Amino acid sequence: MPKISNKGRNMPESPIRKLVPYAEAATRKGRNIYQLNIGQPDIKTPQAALDAVKTNDIEVLSYSHSAGFESYRTKLAAYYKKNDIPVNADEIIVTTGGSEALMFAMGSITDPGDEVIIPEPFYANYNGFATASGVNIVPIKSSIENNFALPPISKFEELISEKTKAIILCNPGNPTGYLYTKEEIEQLAEIALKHDLFIVADEVYREFAYDGVKHHSIMSIPKLAQNAIMVDSVSKRYSMCGARIGCLVSKNQEVMKTAMKFAQARLSPPTFAQIASEAALDTPQEYFDEVIEEYTTRRNILIEGLEKIEGVKVAKPKGAFYCIAELPVENADDFAQWLLEEFEMDNETIMVAPAAGFYSTPNTGLNQVRIAYVLKKENLIRAIEILEVALKQYNK
Amino acid sequence: MPKISNKGRNMPESPIRKLVPYAEAATRKGRNIYQLNIGQPDIKTPQAALDAVKTNDIEVLSYSHSAGFESYRTKLAAYYKKNDIPVNADEIIVTTGGSEALMFAMGSITDPGDEVIIPEPFYANYNGFATASGVNIVPIKSSIENNFALPPISKFEELISEKTKAIILCNPGNPTGYLYTKEEIEQLAEIALKHDLFIVADEVYREFAYDGVKHHSIMSIPKLAQNAIMVDSVSKRYSMCGARIGCLVSKNQEVMKTAMKFAQARLSPPTFAQIASEAALDTPQEYFDEVIEEYTTRRNILIEGLEKIEGVKVAKPKGAFYCIAELPVENADDFAQWLLEEFEMDNETIMVAPAAGFYSTPNTGLNQVRIAYVLKKENLIRAIEILEVALKQYNK
Ligand SMILES: Cc1ncc(COP(=O)(O)O)c(C=O)c1O
Ligand SMILES: Cc1ncc(COP(=O)(O)O)c(C=O)c1O
Repeated sequence: MPKISNKGRNMPESPIRKLVPYAEAATRKGRNIYQLNIGQPDIKTPQAALDAVKTNDIEVLSYSHSAGFESYRTKLAAYYKKNDIPVNADEIIVTTGGSEALMFAMGSITDPGDEVIIPEPFYANYNGFATASGVNIVPIKSSIENNFALPPISKFEELISEKTKAIILCNPGNPTGYLYTKEEIEQLAEIALKHDLFIVADEVYREFAYDGVKHHSIMSIPKLAQNAIMVDSVSKRYSMCGARIGCLVSKNQEVMKTAMKFAQARLSPPTFAQIASEAALDTPQEYFDEVIEEYTTRRNILIEGLEKIEGVKVAKPKGAFYCIAELPVENADDFAQWLLEEFEMDNETIMVAPAAGFYSTPNTGLNQVRIAYVLKKENLIRAIEILEVALKQYNK
Repeated sequence: MPKISNKGRNMPESPIRKLVPYAEAATRKGRNIYQLNIGQPDIKTPQAALDAVKTNDIEVLSYSHSAGFESYRTKLAAYYKKNDIPVNADEIIVTTGGSEALMFAMGSITDPGDEVIIPEPFYANYNGFATASGVNIVPIKSSIENNFALPPISKFEELISEKTKAIILCNPGNPTGYLYTKEEIEQLAEIALKHDLFIVADEVYREFAYDGVKHHSIMSIPKLAQNAIMVDSVSKRYSMCGARIGCLVSKNQEVMKTAMKFAQARLSPPTFAQIASEAALDTPQEYFDEVIEEYTTRRNILIEGLEKIEGVKVAKPKGAFYCIAELPVENADDFAQWLLEEFEMDNETIMVAPAAGFYSTPNTGLNQVRIAYVLKKENLIRAIEILEVALKQYNK
């Protein structure tokens, strides 16, 4: 029998993969599960985006330009300009989700054996994209104690080697909810310039910044123009995860030319989804105001709720819709499985994502979980109650 | 300034890339260009597929299962069974185009430095997917003299090394139009079994088989089950290139488990397009009958027309909608550019794809072009007239 690749063998599984069969079994038993484990918002997609697809008059559903509709890229550039991100349509390649933009970025700037530095915990699929590209992630630990702020620049410099090609940043952070300050972004820019590194900034949660704090894009630093690559997506912004539209943005023409070769090989991003995404750009500010208000309320309920539970430590997120919580358990993996397999409270339970999968340093974050606050208030409140009771019972 | 990757530098450009600026300039001059260079059918997408998207009642456009809708995979399995391809829903992963299925296949079975054997000329983007994966393509030349039939098995055996992981086959072939016989497929199966190789069969043109000749899928050979990986797509079958839906099919559970890890890293295939693709499965046989009739007529017009031009040699395609034509020119690249830059006939010209980009052996196919017969009859006839006149003028 022919053998699969080492690369394939090394591809990581999603942090919740192991839990899925237990969740399915629980569901079969009729158990209601509050899903705190995934970043799938329950917010309605803007009607204008959905309507644009419904009223399309396509007769031949043909390939689009490999960089995406020009009309869409032009409107997107205007949207970015409004957000202090001065880019033109030809500095944007529309991709199949932010996921594909991350792959294109990796492919364009790294070769197998190269290294990228990423503050951990980080979005778990960076591990997958790195493995698929043969690239080694060099993690730099950020800590719950100081809210997952940027580690000191000296720490970065200790880790930079001949093989370092880029620093990857998720801002606001999944899973930390951390929103980098202007000073932090500028410090990073300095090291990138000093060591000739790219900064790949995953800004898919840009709109999700709370408490009036402003998001600072990597693209807003003029002198960093040749080093900065931004990854973006409509998935979270418009609650359009299923569209599969994102983009890669850079003012570095060499990077764009290279990424275009990857884009051409896969022909084009999805057409219906581009129609929806282009229309979504007309979404009125009120939509976001409401969404932000809703998430702020949810965050407050979640964080206050978690802080009240004995033994739970939590960093207050300023952006995105996740938080990392440290639990009074030894092994969050085991606890998460137990929640699905053995626990129930009035035939209900919760599903959380063990945080170890968001670290690349082995045996780190073992007592942490990621909680997504993508549920309605009353469900969040109930989920926290369940967590509190479950922890007591588990620790007996 | 930070440097792009070697991989990125080595990524091939599409064979027509160099021609695009000339085509754009010609268009700006008001010139009408008959596009014989791309595989974008002009056939209408089945109405049922378009309607399903228009009448969808999605409110939250969420991620689908990473393997694609279960309902779609179930219907797809039934479609395959009708086509002598006995697979179940869990032996299918829905991908973002056949393109992504090819990437997942490469990633699952090859590591950097590994080799895959491919009869050339082959679909040009295999070069891109191989480069992105760090894999070396070992070409095995098929020849216009015998219609691009499968090269002798002994030739394959000469090329198999320690590093060979797979044979990639495109059936029916782009750019050759060759449809492999049952005997050829069985011969390939024998070498694959003997040398423990995978066979990756790109069968995206399955429906496009002419003259009553039957298509033989790699999946129809029971003893090859553990070695066979099929790549498929809705792009050509339903003239739905812009949907970006394809799939990876294998009965090898190790392959499927591995490919699923790649699928999970990128989250999910596009939702609207899955809705369209699922509905497209209800397309009545008459649609295909008409399409096949139309393409058969087009092929006949094209081949007869080309055969009448002095100095032109052409292999008669039995499938897909391309042919390779050898022209009485030394450098088809130069000729193709000249057609756009200098030539015109009543303010019209044609665009063809120089064939060298479909070979990986250097300096091969230099006097060949790929012609796609995706135009209406009258346009094809006109395009052939233009080619005849142009060749005379170019050779003066
Ligand atoms: C930080 C981050 N980046 C990128 C993505 C990829 O999203 P998509 O491919 O849907 O744009 C996600 C999805 O959860 C994410 O959380
Ligand atoms: C032979 C072959 N394979 C795969 C593809 C990829 O098509 P898609 O990604 O649209 O399914 C094409 C497109 O032209 C092709 O010709």
